[in-house]
Amino acid sequence: MDQETEIQNADSDSDSYTDVLIVGAGPAGLMALYWMAVYGVRARIIDKRGTKVFTGQADGLRPRTLELFDSMGFQHRVIHEGHVAVEANFWVPDRNGKLTRQGPHCSPKINESNHHNMLLTQGRVERFVIDAIQNYSDLEIERGIIAESFEYDENLENDLDAYPITVGLRTLSDEEANPVHLTTNTNESGQQIPNEQGRGSLLPDDWNELIQKSHIRKTKIETVKAKFIIGCDGAHSWTRKQVNIPLDGSVTDHIWGVIDIVPLSNFPDMRRLGTITHSSGTILVIPRERNLVRLYVPVQIVNNTSDTRFDRSAITLEMIKTRIQDIISPYTFDFQICDWWAAYQIGQRIAPSFNKGSRIYLAGDAVHTHSPKVGLGMNMSMQDGFNIGWKVAMVAIGAANPAILNTYTEERHPLAEMLLEFDKLWSGEFTETNENGVANSDKAERMVDVVEKFMDFADGLKVYYSESLLVWKDSKDIGSDATLNLIPGERIPPVKLRNQAEGNSKWTTRLFESDGLFRIIILAGDIRTEEQKKRVEILGTVLAGKDQTKISPIHRYVHIPGHKDQIRVITIHSAPWKEVEFFDFPEILRPFDPIMGWGYGDIWCDGFCDWDPHCQGKGYEKWGVDRTRGAMLILRPDQYIGWAGELEEVDEMTAYLDGVLVKMPTSEL
Amino acid sequence: MDQETEIQNADSDSDSYTDVLIVGAGPAGLMALYWMAVYGVRARIIDKRGTKVFTGQADGLRPRTLELFDSMGFQHRVIHEGHVAVEANFWVPDRNGKLTRQGPHCSPKINESNHHNMLLTQGRVERFVIDAIQNYSDLEIERGIIAESFEYDENLENDLDAYPITVGLRTLSDEEANPVHLTTNTNESGQQIPNEQGRGSLLPDDWNELIQKSHIRKTKIETVKAKFIIGCDGAHSWTRKQVNIPLDGSVTDHIWGVIDIVPLSNFPDMRRLGTITHSSGTILVIPRERNLVRLYVPVQIVNNTSDTRFDRSAITLEMIKTRIQDIISPYTFDFQICDWWAAYQIGQRIAPSFNKGSRIYLAGDAVHTHSPKVGLGMNMSMQDGFNIGWKVAMVAIGAANPAILNTYTEERHPLAEMLLEFDKLWSGEFTETNENGVANSDKAERMVDVVEKFMDFADGLKVYYSESLLVWKDSKDIGSDATLNLIPGERIPPVKLRNQAEGNSKWTTRLFESDGLFRIIILAGDIRTEEQKKRVEILGTVLAGKDQTKISPIHRYVHIPGHKDQIRVITIHSAPWKEVEFFDFPEILRPFDPIMGWGYGDIWCDGFCDWDPHCQGKGYEKWGVDRTRGAMLILRPDQYIGWAGELEEVDEMTAYLDGVLVKMPTSEL
Repeated sequence: MDQETEIQNADSDSDSYTDVLIVGAGPAGLMALYWMAVYGVRARIIDKRGTKVFTGQADGLRPRTLELFDSMGFQHRVIHEGHVAVEANFWVPDRNGKLTRQGPHCSPKINESNHHNMLLTQGRVERFVIDAIQNYSDLEIERGIIAESFEYDENLENDLDAYPITVGLRTLSDEEANPVHLTTNTNESGQQIPNEQGRGSLLPDDWNELIQKSHIRKTKIETVKAKFIIGCDGAHSWTRKQVNIPLDGSVTDHIWGVIDIVPLSNFPDMRRLGTITHSSGTILVIPRERNLVRLYVPVQIVNNTSDTRFDRSAITLEMIKTRIQDIISPYTFDFQICDWWAAYQIGQRIAPSFNKGSRIYLAGDAVHTHSPKVGLGMNMSMQDGFNIGWKVAMVAIGAANPAILNTYTEERHPLAEMLLEFDKLWSGEFTETNENGVANSDKAERMVDVVEKFMDFADGLKVYYSESLLVWKDSKDIGSDATLNLIPGERIPPVKLRNQAEGNSKWTTRLFESDGLFRIIILAGDIRTEEQKKRVEILGTVLAGKDQTKISPIHRYVHIPGHKDQIRVITIHSAPWKEVEFFDFPEILRPFDPIMGWGYGDIWCDGFCDWDPHCQGKGYEKWGVDRTRGAMLILRPDQYIGWAGELEEVDEMTAYLDGVLVKMPTSEL
Repeated sequence: MDQETEIQNADSDSDSYTDVLIVGAGPAGLMALYWMAVYGVRARIIDKRGTKVFTGQADGLRPRTLELFDSMGFQHRVIHEGHVAVEANFWVPDRNGKLTRQGPHCSPKINESNHHNMLLTQGRVERFVIDAIQNYSDLEIERGIIAESFEYDENLENDLDAYPITVGLRTLSDEEANPVHLTTNTNESGQQIPNEQGRGSLLPDDWNELIQKSHIRKTKIETVKAKFIIGCDGAHSWTRKQVNIPLDGSVTDHIWGVIDIVPLSNFPDMRRLGTITHSSGTILVIPRERNLVRLYVPVQIVNNTSDTRFDRSAITLEMIKTRIQDIISPYTFDFQICDWWAAYQIGQRIAPSFNKGSRIYLAGDAVHTHSPKVGLGMNMSMQDGFNIGWKVAMVAIGAANPAILNTYTEERHPLAEMLLEFDKLWSGEFTETNENGVANSDKAERMVDVVEKFMDFADGLKVYYSESLLVWKDSKDIGSDATLNLIPGERIPPVKLRNQAEGNSKWTTRLFESDGLFRIIILAGDIRTEEQKKRVEILGTVLAGKDQTKISPIHRYVHIPGHKDQIRVITIHSAPWKEVEFFDFPEILRPFDPIMGWGYGDIWCDGFCDWDPHCQGKGYEKWGVDRTRGAMLILRPDQYIGWAGELEEVDEMTAYLDGVLVKMPTSEL
């Protein structure tokens, strides 16, 4: 009797078991689910809505999020459909009150990532993640299902074989799962808005999903027992409420309008990212895919009450349009096509913790709400889900030390705090009024200052992950000197490399796939020198475990589905591509498989390529690594650096891995 | 009674009508079908096989083909899945008989296209084209159907409303449509080959097609009447035989083997494009996607008979492997995974004409057969289909002068002749034997010479399309001086540009979409100078037709579905991006639509972009156009230059268009 059968018989027929239950299939939940698919975890994901999102919602994609998409294999689709917005323009009144462009302002760090800020509707992003999930597994999103009851048996928390969580699920009727406002573009006030949800504005893959949604649905009650639950169920998170975690903070006193329209306007920068400040407020203009433009505008001030929500039905599309026309004047503004619109009032609120014990986790809007105007909501939510997903998955399959789960709140909470601080400052710039109708002359300058202050954080160039089991900051001095810009707790700055065996070029963001493996990155330096070649050969011998006293760190850990080892070794040398051969490197760095042959994908060159201007052979310099001596890194499955050191520091590196990963029983080695 | 109903009633129930019937849904047929979808032509396509190709067949994709894919909107998928092979290595014995690398050799013209040689199995390429077709229309490929009878009534040839072609179709049984060797990897000799057609090696979109293929099929006989027929039915073309067009030439005396395998070898360049010459022959090595490598090897010499086909069952996979092992020795060679293999004997044969009258066209292998080793078969076939497709489609919908159909054979036949000449020389290098087992020392040099001699042709950098209604070579001298490298009958060399309104960068290969439109490309020069600004304004006035004596060339021609005009104007200026505004250009160059707003996609800048190294602002120089004065072009729907001249030459340009396009009835203007 296998484990599955045993479980089925263990309880009443109406109970089912899953290792991980994800509540909410928005950006955060889908990212967490991605890892369940990668690691082959027995998981389920439910969402109360009958279909995925098709229009509206979030649209901003920051460089780090795009780097993650690249590692997940679908960034080419985002580039194909999305809109790049790099330069920002700030329109402010001059001393005569005439709107004048300040800009374009371009980030001085624009080339620190291979990906630039993009805009694309959340609906398409969700489609891409879902397709990536389906490349790995048959996991399906169970839509039109809500969680209704929750029990948690704390006594079972430390027993990894136990199912301490019990959740009651109910299948919704079609009407409940597909409320009118989700399937048509009629707004809550009954206004008719041009409905763009015909085939013309949807791509075929979404179209199919939309027409398939109306399947016959039987209302059903089910009890699920789970080892872990990840609540990705939005600002009004049901999951968060079950575990009594509050959202601290307050709502602001402004009501905002947001519209996705095809503009009819003579404003010069209607297709450029920017702000327009005039008299009583500021508009944010965001160019989008398919001729759409999103505009955010403060609509009115309500009484400052910390808990009362305003009556959204008081705001109409006409009201938002008129407000924009007032601010943008003397330029014209109108539209015939409105893809989506909403009115909202949002405060900066944050949960004190993103987890309850070691089995219950919360991600995305469930633990931090803020205004959408910094274009970070989808990014933060996806990165939350990405962070907790691989950790829970690895623990669930018994491949990682459960202690890594503690790092989730440690790593993500400080970033959510930064997000709120950024949002407060940025939102303030939009609602600040000026009695005489003329903004301060330094308005644009102040906005640039806010953007630049938070740039590293917002673009994800830095995540500031603190020291932990997963991030070893205390490398020896020699280690940190050797890897000046390769900092444990940060991402590896993207570089385009050439494959040694093939000559093809590839960005590290694509090379380091989100395939669930830890990676040892050997920056092998220049093996044309005898001394360096010797160092690399010794490293190869140590890694191969030929010293019979210990088992190679590459082979000693519990495997994950589809991979022979939990560790993948990638070597990046610094010699010119033509002056070194694939077979010059120790065999352990390019291992032979009796079916798949040599590891041609494992040896890379930071060398100049005269047919690819992105491939300049300056990666070592970007990383702050000596081109002759090289260095060595551990990348976590989410491609953040876990450890950095010298080629000789295999013992320290192995100690890092031993602390994180579960060793295989000796009998299986 | 609409036209459709009229036709239905006009004849017996078993007859059906279509404007264009395409026979064969391989690369050539699909490219032709693409245009039917774009122009909304009533068309059908049949194929005798029950499914599309999944493994094997062609795999080489040349730059020009990739440029076309870009214009069709799916090149990002090819880049994501395919393998780039830019440098070639020639391994020849040195004077001691030891195999030695000559290379890598890289084309001196490598950067003349934004796309480089790629390798990807034909099955995926067909998938992408099918998906592109489905983005435009509901046209479906009718599989498992053969054409059995053919009648042609020449008397109706000049009546565009008539259906001179009558074809009898028969639906095949499942067994006929899906012969064993197409659905399993058991070869004709009964050998078992590792079957890689499981889910692991197919992507989900293909997998779905494979499992859906076994639908219940009723044998059915149908008579179809068509205005046009395009035969894309391969080397044994049924269509060609109906019209008694021969294939001239002869088969060669060599039998070749080709295998797609995952190599187990210590040969240093097993993942690099190249050749290995030793004793009695030469192997061609082609690295591919998914760890596959394709190898071509001459297996044996048969008697030189011009018509007899050799017995392919005499060749086994083992025989091919042994032959490779002999040549590659002392390096090892073996494999566990074989994705596909075949033995073939091919000569250079060509049809004297690619059409019969003005209604019957042949494309691809139906009119030219050759060895696959130059990696051009799929490219030539697709470009044939691409060339005839838009011409037939435009005539079928009444938008173009039927005389343009004459240009098909004129344009494509000389290229097929070049292909055969290239193939003869290149193949000769593989089968040339050397009695003492040591190749000539200049072997590698000679191979490079052959490759370089045919490079412009093979990569599609030049097509040498001759003077015709569609290609005006006789532009005034001043015209050709103004556009040194923009030559009528050739493609426009790719350049990356910035959108003036948005700041996004885009390659011309993507900007000039294959959407069925003729394009006027206005190289507006530098409008910061008063004189040039004046020239552009005058041009705008002339194009707008404000001179009441004539109707604007932009608005005067019959429309195609989904577009307001048959002519799209794209302006590319040469001033720095920040020093010019979108609204600086005449309105006719950025027309306003009451629903979609201004034509933001119409004004582009050949300017430097500091976050995109491909965007250097050197396009005018590449095109040989004066940065101040600019020039003007017509691009045909297939993006070949039809006419080139100065901004003042609207009359001559209009004369070109008048010769090609059909004017709208004056009442509809």
